[in-house]
Order: sequence, then C-alpha cells, then structure tokens
Amino acid sequence: MKYCSSCGGILSRKQTEQDDRYRSVCGTCGAIHYENPRIIVCCAVCLRDKVLMCRRAQEPGLGQWVVPSGFLEVGESLEQGAARETREETGLIVDPERLDLCSVVNMTSIEQVAIMFRIELDALPTLTPGPECLEVAFMPAQEIPADQFAWRSAMGDGPERFSRELRSREFTIQLITFASADGTGFRSREYTITSVNDTRLGDRDR
Amino acid sequence: MKYCSSCGGILSRKQTEQDDRYRSVCGTCGAIHYENPRIIVCCAVCLRDKVLMCRRAQEPGLGQWVVPSGFLEVGESLEQGAARETREETGLIVDPERLDLCSVVNMTSIEQVAIMFRIELDALPTLTPGPECLEVAFMPAQEIPADQFAWRSAMGDGPERFSRELRSREFTIQLITFASADGTGFRSREYTITSVNDTRLGDRDR
Repeated sequence: MKYCSSCGGILSRKQTEQDDRYRSVCGTCGAIHYENPRIIVCCAVCLRDKVLMCRRAQEPGLGQWVVPSGFLEVGESLEQGAARETREETGLIVDPERLDLCSVVNMTSIEQVAIMFRIELDALPTLTPGPECLEVAFMPAQEIPADQFAWRSAMGDGPERFSRELRSREFTIQLITFASADGTGFRSREYTITSVNDTRLGDRDR
Repeated sequence: MKYCSSCGGILSRKQTEQDDRYRSVCGTCGAIHYENPRIIVCCAVCLRDKVLMCRRAQEPGLGQWVVPSGFLEVGESLEQGAARETREETGLIVDPERLDLCSVVNMTSIEQVAIMFRIELDALPTLTPGPECLEVAFMPAQEIPADQFAWRSAMGDGPERFSRELRSREFTIQLITFASADGTGFRSREYTITSVNDTRLGDRDR
C-alpha cells in the first residue's frame, strides 16, 4: 500500500491518535487505511471415511492436495462461501444450510483466519475439477503423504483427528492455531458436540 | 476505492478473467483489488449470571450496551484480539488461552464476520472504561432493554440463550446468521458441547 485508495495521495506509516498502532495514513486527505486479516472458507465433504480433496493447479502448494477452500467474498455467508468454493473447485453442489461448523483456525503468520465446515454424502457424486485443480478425488486424508498435502506441517494432528472422528462418529468443533515457521507449535482446543439444534426467527416474505 | 494502492492509477470495475466477478482493477498496472469481509472479535466475560457490557461512546450505537468487541488486527490470533479489545474497553486483563469459543456470526449485510469468546470470572474485578466506552458494568444481558442494546434487533434470541446457558451451565457453540434489514431473519445452529480437550504439538524453544 503506497497510495491512498480514496484520493491517490501518498501513504506513510504513522501512529494514529485513536490507538498506539502504526497505520497507513494519507498525507493528503488524512484517511487511515486499516489492514485486517482475511477469511478463508473450507469445506470437508465426507463420504464414509474419505474426504473430497483437490490437487492444486497453482502456487502456493502447486500439485499438492487440499480440501476445497478460498477467500470469503463480500455478500455471502461463510456457509455460502464454502459451498461456492466446493462448486468452483470440484463441480459438486452442496446446500450451504446443510454445512456443519467444523473448525475455526488462526493462521496468524499469513494474516488469515480459516473457517472449516463439514458435510457428509451418502453416495459418490459426479465431480468436475475446476480450473484451479489438477484433479479432485475422495481420499482418506490421513493417508496422504505429508509432502503431497498442502500446508501439512502447520496442521498438527488435524487430519488424523478428522479421520478418527469420521470413523467414530464422535465429532468435535476445534479452535485451532496453526504452527508457524517462527517456531510456534500447533494448538487445538476440541469441543465434543453431542447434539445440534436449529433456530430460525423472524424471516419475512417466506 | 478509486485509486490503486500500488501505483496510484485509476481503478475501474471490471469482470476479471480468473472468475466472473466484478473487481476493482487498476487501468495502469492491472492490479486487482479484492474486497473481503472483515473479522470482529468479541468477548463475553461472565460473572455468575452477569456479562461484562460496555456502553458505547461513539456511533454506531452511541449510548448503547455491547460486549467488548472490535476488528481483529493483523499479527494477533482471534483470542488475542478478543482479549485486547476487552482490555482496551474495560481495563480487564484476560488470558487469551483461557477463552472458549462461543459463536461464529455471519453479519453478511455489513461485510463482517464476528467470532465471540466466553470466559468466566470468580470475583468482581476492577474495571476502567476505555476511551470508546461511557461506562462498563456486569449486567444480566437479557434484562437490557432492546433499545439500549446495540444491534439487538439482529440478534434473535441470542442474549436470552446466553443467559439460560450461564444459569444451566450447559453451553453451546453457535453458528449464527444475524437478521438483516432486507428481511432475512435470525438463524442459529447450536451445538451442545460436553467436554473440552487441549492439544499442543511441536512448540520449539519452550
């Protein structure tokens, strides 16, 4: 960020009056340009003990496997974003309302937070890899070699845990901090869930 | 966004080749400027059946009550952000590692996602309202009149549910979509949690 997106003026790093942080401030109009972490939405589509994985057609992680995922766009809910990424990358249409919350992941060193959802299918669907994928397939995630699993070293025991939960049918919601290159390890707090209830209030025009 | 933050060129809305969306694209250097939802972190600090609330000193919601909350900054985890907002707004220092995941909230119409945490105290702490608060106090959240509770109309039965859970000691994690002015109602999926487990792997230099 070098130029003000409002007026085109030159930005400089300055301590603002509002707080003690250094921000990009415009020398012409005074606008403060905040930088905030971005949200990644992910979807683990499960078929028995297998998970729908995509082999990436681009860097980072070119040629490596990952679940359908991408940036949340403005105007969509987290569930809609996860369903959109799943459709774009695999051709599979999933109902956003059927997605279950799976994990909330701090990826602090890359200024991202991931929200992962889970959905289970009864039968093998037709899959059509999108332009961002070399191939897509249902795989036992814990069997993918670490060097073929994108960002695997950050994920601690996440894939093994997920596979265990798929087999045992005892699911958790996890609050995770990914390991980072600076030596901070993987952390996870797992909440065992026993039941699910839906509430809907005040829909108009339905 | 009118000007390119990389080169100062003029932006225009264009359909990009990568996807079918209209983005702000620079006419000079070709940079695509993505707009992504921002993350709000919130902290419900609980003392028996009361919750630590702040009366806002600024718009929006001037004079209304809300839990400590604000934008997640780059370089901090969600828990660290929630603890920072709590300290800045109330003077109370909470340990980020003691925060429990409480809810994940779609606030699609305002292009924000909120992540709320919960922590329980044993005794009344000393509180010091920050510059963004007129006053701070522990209150039974469900007793705050709707017109004095910031954004209350979007929250469905959230405050009542939270108060019930505080009394019953049976907590849920909620995946919520706030009601919006366009007539979309409040939705919540509540996952009842029964146990919590912590995993830590691969910390170096500890």
